[in-house]
Amino acid sequence: MGDTVDFSVGVVLPSAGSGERMNSAASLPKQYIKILKKPLFLYAVEAFFSLDYVKKIVLVADNVERMTGCLLEFGLHDNSRILVTKGGTTRHRSIKKGLQELEKFRDELDLKVVVVHDAVRPFVPKTLIDELVRESHSNGAAGPTKPLVSTVVKPSAQGTLENSLQRSLYANSETPQSFQFDLLMSAYSKLSEEDLEFGTECLQLILKYCGVNAKLVPTEHDLSKVTYNRDVYTVESLLKEKMSDVCIISDRETEVLKLIADTLTGRVASLQTLVGSLSDKAKDNGKTYNTVVLFHHKEIQQDRHLLDFANLIDLERRGLIIHIIDHASIDGLQSMSVYNLHRNSRKMAHHYEKLSKGVVVIHCVSSNEVQRIASMVLSLISDDPQTFSGQTLFL
Amino acid sequence: MGDTVDFSVGVVLPSAGSGERMNSAASLPKQYIKILKKPLFLYAVEAFFSLDYVKKIVLVADNVERMTGCLLEFGLHDNSRILVTKGGTTRHRSIKKGLQELEKFRDELDLKVVVVHDAVRPFVPKTLIDELVRESHSNGAAGPTKPLVSTVVKPSAQGTLENSLQRSLYANSETPQSFQFDLLMSAYSKLSEEDLEFGTECLQLILKYCGVNAKLVPTEHDLSKVTYNRDVYTVESLLKEKMSDVCIISDRETEVLKLIADTLTGRVASLQTLVGSLSDKAKDNGKTYNTVVLFHHKEIQQDRHLLDFANLIDLERRGLIIHIIDHASIDGLQSMSVYNLHRNSRKMAHHYEKLSKGVVVIHCVSSNEVQRIASMVLSLISDDPQTFSGQTLFL
Repeated sequence: MGDTVDFSVGVVLPSAGSGERMNSAASLPKQYIKILKKPLFLYAVEAFFSLDYVKKIVLVADNVERMTGCLLEFGLHDNSRILVTKGGTTRHRSIKKGLQELEKFRDELDLKVVVVHDAVRPFVPKTLIDELVRESHSNGAAGPTKPLVSTVVKPSAQGTLENSLQRSLYANSETPQSFQFDLLMSAYSKLSEEDLEFGTECLQLILKYCGVNAKLVPTEHDLSKVTYNRDVYTVESLLKEKMSDVCIISDRETEVLKLIADTLTGRVASLQTLVGSLSDKAKDNGKTYNTVVLFHHKEIQQDRHLLDFANLIDLERRGLIIHIIDHASIDGLQSMSVYNLHRNSRKMAHHYEKLSKGVVVIHCVSSNEVQRIASMVLSLISDDPQTFSGQTLFL
Repeated sequence: MGDTVDFSVGVVLPSAGSGERMNSAASLPKQYIKILKKPLFLYAVEAFFSLDYVKKIVLVADNVERMTGCLLEFGLHDNSRILVTKGGTTRHRSIKKGLQELEKFRDELDLKVVVVHDAVRPFVPKTLIDELVRESHSNGAAGPTKPLVSTVVKPSAQGTLENSLQRSLYANSETPQSFQFDLLMSAYSKLSEEDLEFGTECLQLILKYCGVNAKLVPTEHDLSKVTYNRDVYTVESLLKEKMSDVCIISDRETEVLKLIADTLTGRVASLQTLVGSLSDKAKDNGKTYNTVVLFHHKEIQQDRHLLDFANLIDLERRGLIIHIIDHASIDGLQSMSVYNLHRNSRKMAHHYEKLSKGVVVIHCVSSNEVQRIASMVLSLISDDPQTFSGQTLFL
C-alpha cells in the first residue's frame, strides 16, 4: 500500500450536540466552548481543511447561522470546501443529513471515501487519517481503537455486577472513522428508526447492514473527546503543549538554565537549548521556534537583540519571547521610573506584535530564586502569549 | 441505612507501578509524578487519612524507602495509621501483600471493611467512600461505575471489528472499591497464579470465588486515573479548580468586574462577588475564601486594606490576593522608581506570606483592555499562588 492518498475524500462532521452532559451554567453546546479563544469545533474543521485530498467538509450544525458566524469570524467561510447544514436530533440522524448533502457533490468531486468524525474531538492527526482513508478505500471501513483504561462491567437490573469483560479482549472505538462512500450510503439507507435514535457506532452499522468487518487501527494518537468539563482542561493543555516549540538561548551554562529546561521537558512540543554565542550554525540549522527564552547578562537593547535571533523565530505562529536579564545587583534599576519602564515594555510588545509574538522581560539579580524563575517561565509559556505580553517581572 | 459509618475500615493502596505506559523521559513511576508540587500518590493517602473511620492505610510501594521519604517530607509519616510495605509485580499481587499486612491489625483495630483504591487516582470523595463502605458492610462488596464514553469493540484475531457492545448495557468500573474484610481475604486466598498475574478487577474475583454480586454505585464524582501524560494535565487542572474559593470585591459594578466573574465561572470551586463597601454583613457571613480579587479606585495602603477584608480570608489554605488598582490616568505612576516599586511589592508579599497568601498588584488605567485583565486574573488564579507573588503588572 502506497503512503499517499490519490483519491478524493469527503468529511461529515456532526456538530449538532446540545451539550447536555456538560451541565454548564449557560448550557453552551460543547462544540462552541472556547478553547484557547477558538470555538472547539473549529479545530477539527481546520485540521481536515488542511488536507489536500479532502474536497468537501459537511459541518452538520445545531444552528447553521451561529456556526457560519464562527467560520466567518475565523476566516474559514470564504471558500467552497466547507458546507454547513442543519443537523438532526441524534448523532446518526445528523450523519445521515450530512451524507445526503455530500452525495450532491459526489460525482462532481469524484468522492470515493467519507470520513466521519466528531466536532468535539479537536485532534485529527494527519498520519492517522492517511492510514484510515487508505484502509477504508481498500477494505470498506476503518476506525481507530485505543486500549481500555478501566474495566468494563455489565450491571444487572438490580444494580449489581453481572459480569466484567476481560480487558485485553476489548478496545475503545474512537473517531475519525473512514468508509467507502457507497458502503456508508448503503448502510444509512437501511437504518431503522431505532438505529437512528439509539445507535452509536458507524462501524457496527456497516457490519450489520453490509456485512463488512471494519479494519480496526490501534493508535497512540490522542483522540480526546470533550464530554465533561474536565475534558476541556485536558484538551486545552494538550493544545498548548503542541503549540510551543521552545528554544532557550544563553551564552553560558547556568543552574537556572538547566532548571528551566528540566521544567519544560514533556510540557512543550519541542525544546532546544543553545549555549554559547549565536553562531552561524545555530542560525542556519533551519529549525524555527515560536517561543524563545533568552538569557542576558547585561541590559538589553531591544532592536539589536531581536535581530540577533530573528532567524530562529517562526513567524507563522503565535508565541512568546522571554528575556531574562541577570543583573549583578539591583542598582541599575533604581533610577528608572515605573512610567518609563511601562512605556518601554509596551513599545517592545508593540514591536514584537508584528512577529505575532508576545514579550515578557524578567529582571533577576544573580539568578537567585531559580526555582521561581523556572515556574514563572513555565506559566508564561503555558498561557496565551498575549496575556502577559509587555509585562516586566522582577525576582 | 444510616448515613454515618460506625465501624472500622482499613485501606489498601497499591502504589507499586513502574509507570511504563507514561513513556516519560526519566520513566518516573506515575505515583511519584509531582502534581502541584506534591507526589501524586499523596493525594489519595491524605484523603483516606482525613477519614476518622479509616484506622489503617497500607501503602503498597514499589520502593519502600522512597515512599517513606515522601511521607516524611510531607509530614505524614509520624503516625501509626500509615504503613508502607513492599509490593508485588502485578496489581493483584500487591493487593494480596497489602491485605496480609492489614490482617495483622484486624483484631486489634476491629476492621470490618477494606477499601482498595489506586495510588494514581488522587480524588477520593468522602460521600462516595461513605456510601461504598456502608454498602459493602451490608452486602459484601461495592464499587463505583461511570457511563462508557467511547463505544467498546471486540477486535477479531485479524484486527477487524468482531462486534461492538451496546453502550447503555455496560459501564466503566472505577475505584475505590469496598469489601467485607472476610470476603476479600477469602477471595485472595483462592486466587490462581493466573488471577494474580492477569486479573484486573477485584469485584469480578469476589463474584468468581465467593459468589457475591458486588453492588455497583453509579457516580458523577471524578475518579480520574493518571494513565497517560495527558491525565496529568487533567488532574492538575481539576485540583487547581477545587483549590480556589474566590471572592471578588468592588465598591461598584464595572464591566471588568462582570467579565472577570464570567471568566472564572466554572473554573474555580466557588465564586462570590461582593459589590459595595465591606459591610458588617459581608464580614460576618462566615464563609471564607483563599483567593480574593479586590478593586480599588485609588492607591492602596497595604496594611489598612488587608485589615478591611481580613475576615474573609481562609487562613488555613494557600491562595492569592489580587489588588486591581484603577487609575484615572497614568500620571500617578511617573514619579515612582522601579526600585521602590519592587521593594514595596516584595514587602507586601512578605506581609501576605504570613497568611499563606501570594499577592499580585495590577495597575490599570480606567479599565481599558478589560479582556486582558480578565485573562490575567484567570491565569494568576490558575497558577501556584507563589509563582507571581510580589509582582506588579500594568495595563
